[in-house]
Amino acid sequence: MPQGQPTSVPDDGLTTRQRRNRALVVVHTGEMKGKSTAAFGLALRAWHQGWPIGVFQFVKSAKWKVGEESALRALGRVHEQTGEGGPVAWHKMGEGWSWIQRPGSEADHAADALEGWEQVKRDLAAQTYSFYVLDEFTYPVKWGWVDVDDVVRTLQERPGTQHVVITGRDADPRLVEAADLVVEMTKVKHPMDAGQKGQRGIEW
Amino acid sequence: MPQGQPTSVPDDGLTTRQRRNRALVVVHTGEMKGKSTAAFGLALRAWHQGWPIGVFQFVKSAKWKVGEESALRALGRVHEQTGEGGPVAWHKMGEGWSWIQRPGSEADHAADALEGWEQVKRDLAAQTYSFYVLDEFTYPVKWGWVDVDDVVRTLQERPGTQHVVITGRDADPRLVEAADLVVEMTKVKHPMDAGQKGQRGIEW
Repeated sequence: MPQGQPTSVPDDGLTTRQRRNRALVVVHTGEMKGKSTAAFGLALRAWHQGWPIGVFQFVKSAKWKVGEESALRALGRVHEQTGEGGPVAWHKMGEGWSWIQRPGSEADHAADALEGWEQVKRDLAAQTYSFYVLDEFTYPVKWGWVDVDDVVRTLQERPGTQHVVITGRDADPRLVEAADLVVEMTKVKHPMDAGQKGQRGIEW
Repeated sequence: MPQGQPTSVPDDGLTTRQRRNRALVVVHTGEMKGKSTAAFGLALRAWHQGWPIGVFQFVKSAKWKVGEESALRALGRVHEQTGEGGPVAWHKMGEGWSWIQRPGSEADHAADALEGWEQVKRDLAAQTYSFYVLDEFTYPVKWGWVDVDDVVRTLQERPGTQHVVITGRDADPRLVEAADLVVEMTKVKHPMDAGQKGQRGIEW
C-alpha cells in the first residue's frame, strides 16, 4: 500500500467515519496535566457503555497515574463480578508491557514504545477493545520512535467501532489533522508556578 | 464580617493554603466538554487516596454525565464492600437535591442553585468531603444566583484539607483569581463542527 492516504478513504476521513457510526480519534494535547485526566474521565463513560477498554501507557515511569489505574482496575473488577460496565485492560511500558515475557529491554525506550504501538495495531486489527487510551503517545511519535504516517494510516483504516484517545504535549500536526476531536489543555494558573510541589491526590 | 478579603487571609491566599498542605481550588473552564470529564478524572485519584468525594451537579438536566455518575457510584460501592478507595456521594440539582424532601421547586432554578451552594457551604464547614466537584457551578455564579464574593470567601476560609474543583464556561474573574489551578479547555477541532451529533459513550 502506498504511503499517505489510501484511495479508499476520503481526504477528510469523514465519510468512512460516518458510515461506521463515527468512532472517534481524540487528541488531548497542550501544556497542562488535564490531558490524561480527561482521557481517563472519558474512559468512565466508555466503561458505563460496557465497552472493553484498553489503556496503553507510553511512559517509562507511570507513577503519576496510580490513582486512575487503581480506579479503572477496580471498575474492571466490578464488571467481572457483576457484569456492570465493561472490562478494563491496563498496559504499562514502565513495567515492561504485560504481553512481553522478557523484561530485558529496559534500556531501549524506542524499541519498547514501538512494541507498544505494534500491539495497539494488533488489537485494532482484532477489534480487541472499543475504547483505547494511548497515554503520552505523542512523545514516541514526536521522537520518531513510531512512524506518524503509520499511526495515521492505521487509525484511518481501523475496522469496526473503535474510539482512540491519544494524550501528550506537542501532538504531531499530522496526528491533529487525522483526529476528529482535538482539545488543548491550556494553563491559566498553576500552583507549581508559586513553587508548590506536586501533591498526593491531585498530581497522582 | 466585611465583604472581600478578611484580614486573617493574605491577598494571594498562599500562606494559609501552604499551612494546611495546600488543599486546592481548581477551575476547569473554557469552551470544551473536557472540563467536567477532567474533573471526574481527578476524582479517580481522590478515590484512590481514600478521600470522601462529594459531587454537586448544578445543572437541571444531567443526562450528559450518566457514565461518570455510574462509574463513580460503582467505585463508591467498591469502597463500601471492600474498603478500597473512598466513599462517593453524588448530588444532582436536576432531580432535586438529594437532601431536600420537597420536589416542588422545579420551576425556580435560581433557588435550587442557591440551595445547592448552601449545602456545599454546610459540607465545607463540617468537612464532610475531602474532594468536591461543583459541576457547572460557574453558571449560577455568572447568572448572579450565587454571590461570587460569598463563594470566594467561603473557599478561602474553608477549614481543613478540602480540595474543590469547579467546572463550567465563563468562570468569573474573581473565581479565577481565587483559584490555585485554572485549566482552560480549548477547542482545536470538534466533530460537531462537521454536523456530527453527540454520541453515546463520548458525549455522555
